[in-house]
Amino acid sequence: MYQLTARDIRRRNRFGVLQAVYAAVGHSSRQEIARATGLSFATVGNMISELLDVGVLVELGYDAPGIGRPRAQLAINPERGMLVGVDIAETALHFDLFDLAMTVQRSVEIPVDPAATEPADVVALITRGIGELTAADADKVLGVGLSVPGLVEPVGGVSVFSPYWHWHDVPLAQLLEQQLSYPLYLDNPLKASTAAHLWFGAGRDVDDLIVVTLRAGVGIGVVVEGMLYRGVTNSAGEWGHTNLVLDGRECRCGRMGCVEAYVGAPGIVRTLRELAPSSPLIDADDAVTIAAIAAAADRGDAVALEVIDKTGNYLGVTVANLVNLFNPRTIVFGDLVADHLGARLLDVTRRVAARHAMTDPFAAVTLQLSTLPHNPASLGAATFALEGFLADRETFGSIAARRALRTSTP
Amino acid sequence: MYQLTARDIRRRNRFGVLQAVYAAVGHSSRQEIARATGLSFATVGNMISELLDVGVLVELGYDAPGIGRPRAQLAINPERGMLVGVDIAETALHFDLFDLAMTVQRSVEIPVDPAATEPADVVALITRGIGELTAADADKVLGVGLSVPGLVEPVGGVSVFSPYWHWHDVPLAQLLEQQLSYPLYLDNPLKASTAAHLWFGAGRDVDDLIVVTLRAGVGIGVVVEGMLYRGVTNSAGEWGHTNLVLDGRECRCGRMGCVEAYVGAPGIVRTLRELAPSSPLIDADDAVTIAAIAAAADRGDAVALEVIDKTGNYLGVTVANLVNLFNPRTIVFGDLVADHLGARLLDVTRRVAARHAMTDPFAAVTLQLSTLPHNPASLGAATFALEGFLADRETFGSIAARRALRTSTP
Ligand SMILES: [Zn+2]
Ligand SMILES: [Zn+2]
Repeated sequence: MYQLTARDIRRRNRFGVLQAVYAAVGHSSRQEIARATGLSFATVGNMISELLDVGVLVELGYDAPGIGRPRAQLAINPERGMLVGVDIAETALHFDLFDLAMTVQRSVEIPVDPAATEPADVVALITRGIGELTAADADKVLGVGLSVPGLVEPVGGVSVFSPYWHWHDVPLAQLLEQQLSYPLYLDNPLKASTAAHLWFGAGRDVDDLIVVTLRAGVGIGVVVEGMLYRGVTNSAGEWGHTNLVLDGRECRCGRMGCVEAYVGAPGIVRTLRELAPSSPLIDADDAVTIAAIAAAADRGDAVALEVIDKTGNYLGVTVANLVNLFNPRTIVFGDLVADHLGARLLDVTRRVAARHAMTDPFAAVTLQLSTLPHNPASLGAATFALEGFLADRETFGSIAARRALRTSTP
Repeated sequence: MYQLTARDIRRRNRFGVLQAVYAAVGHSSRQEIARATGLSFATVGNMISELLDVGVLVELGYDAPGIGRPRAQLAINPERGMLVGVDIAETALHFDLFDLAMTVQRSVEIPVDPAATEPADVVALITRGIGELTAADADKVLGVGLSVPGLVEPVGGVSVFSPYWHWHDVPLAQLLEQQLSYPLYLDNPLKASTAAHLWFGAGRDVDDLIVVTLRAGVGIGVVVEGMLYRGVTNSAGEWGHTNLVLDGRECRCGRMGCVEAYVGAPGIVRTLRELAPSSPLIDADDAVTIAAIAAAADRGDAVALEVIDKTGNYLGVTVANLVNLFNPRTIVFGDLVADHLGARLLDVTRRVAARHAMTDPFAAVTLQLSTLPHNPASLGAATFALEGFLADRETFGSIAARRALRTSTP
């Protein structure tokens, strides 16, 4: 049986209260937070006292006088500390430094030399990037989150398998700990992106959502009742390699007919090649081709429109499957493909999904494009560091102990 | 944000403790229950006191003396009350009366007249069946659970849509409440079967499982961290109508290429017809045909073996998709098709799923046949009634209040 301890509940409530303050953008009152979270006023008061004590929240004074008691306005204290988000991608590492209000303060980008992708090489790049990023603020960093492609074991920080660099069971966290003294949090881009949407995107309004990431690789993150759903070995959401077409196109994973082979960037380019082998839209860089398809569709180009139509047909069928299986409130589409083909692709997808999904769960779901800024992976990685800080026993445990002591001492 | 109140936690722990006692089959000690649930000894002691107070558990005396303190042996008190499980199927209603140890005490079966399937007709049959079943024990019944085909709203007890009888928005619970004074619990057979497996089958050993029901209709129930996963409108698990073959066979739902059209009983019979249109194995009753395929396969009949092989190939692909998406610990296959084609079908399915699923989540999952007795739907329906009784505020709330009073009074 899965156990929830008093500490779990407390941490969960702490997350909820803080998510409500972030969602308010600016400031919020205890009353508004209680309404947004559904928590009792007593619990909210308790959590806020704790967050004020550790300096995560600050009181901004009172709202404009009117009818009723003035309400203390609460806001995130951006100066309480900084969080680092690292997006490790095939060709470049991207580093963002966030203040505690999750505003980007500084960014660094370091290209990856394709000839130097051993773990030691990448560890050196990560260490260098974090050093450049945090130079002036090293003592303010509360934690570092890393989005690591492939299969990741978040607890041990092990890159179990990386599709780009053929890493197997690389103890990445352990290697980094020899160079860095910050708390480290590792997970893959799908999980990171989903955490970003959960805290700062569609998750602010709904508790059950699926985040669909569409770039070269594709995958989903599932949020159930406000929590990231990981499965028993953190592999849940491997939607990209579920079967869409029996004996269909060969996928880069070696299987036939995977979803990714049709709706990932290279799959879409392949659809274009099949329709028009010598199309001028085709570039060596798939991202450029996807952008060219979008621009051509805007001009009414028939081939570009047909590529989007075919892609939406594939996507609609598999999204209908997700609707039937998970019965979520919202499905958010993000990253390269969604950024470029956006509304047009979503229109076809929605129409096809409506036909294939069961009536009732389809009526309950909203399909929408991501509203997050451009890099959900680094924001999500930093969010893991934020969650880690908020779950820190030393910071919050001692507060709780101090309060208990205070209460029990007459 | 999803809220867990102190009452939720308490109820969840109560379920966990009782599940451990059921799993022990016979009797168990506080020490064994603490070990099985992972709950603290204090919590277990607290829950057990409560369950002894209300008469759900009894103490059987102490275990045989040996080294260490003797341990009080606890068992379910079968006489504490009775539960009714009703399986509403297309051609017959099946009623089981369980004691609190979940042993069947009596069963009744009533055929459904295909010409009289209006809600009022079915309500009359249900009322009659429950009357016959409980005649001598009417005052001992704690609750009645009903497995209702199709889409059900458990909270209001509304049959939103029934595929057999073309019911739409039938307020079944309300109609039944005019005839019956027991607490009523309604849900569909997939959810019921999953609850049965969660309490009395594979769920005794694992917290994350998928129950695959294979009969005329097919579907799944998903258990996440020991809880039935329902989705936002209780429609999660509509696996039967996810797409398996693009533009494939027409399904009885009107869509093309659904999973059900290949691995449901009629789909398997169709595969047989396609291979051998005049096969002597074909009977007008699909259940008879499935049994004949099983018997023929045992004799080494090539056509029967090929039907199982093709079915396992379809099933393996879609099961691999479930493994990739949900990353469960166990997948259990049950009902008509699994009962007959059992080990043979599972062998092919496992082999094909191994090829199609991602390596890591497939390594984490066990595929197995159901070990539950023949009717998981009525057992599961009775399990909902058991859960309802265990969540009853009047029974358990007053106990908690009494204890609190006792504790606070010096
Ligand atoms: Zn693949
Ligand atoms: Zn169908």
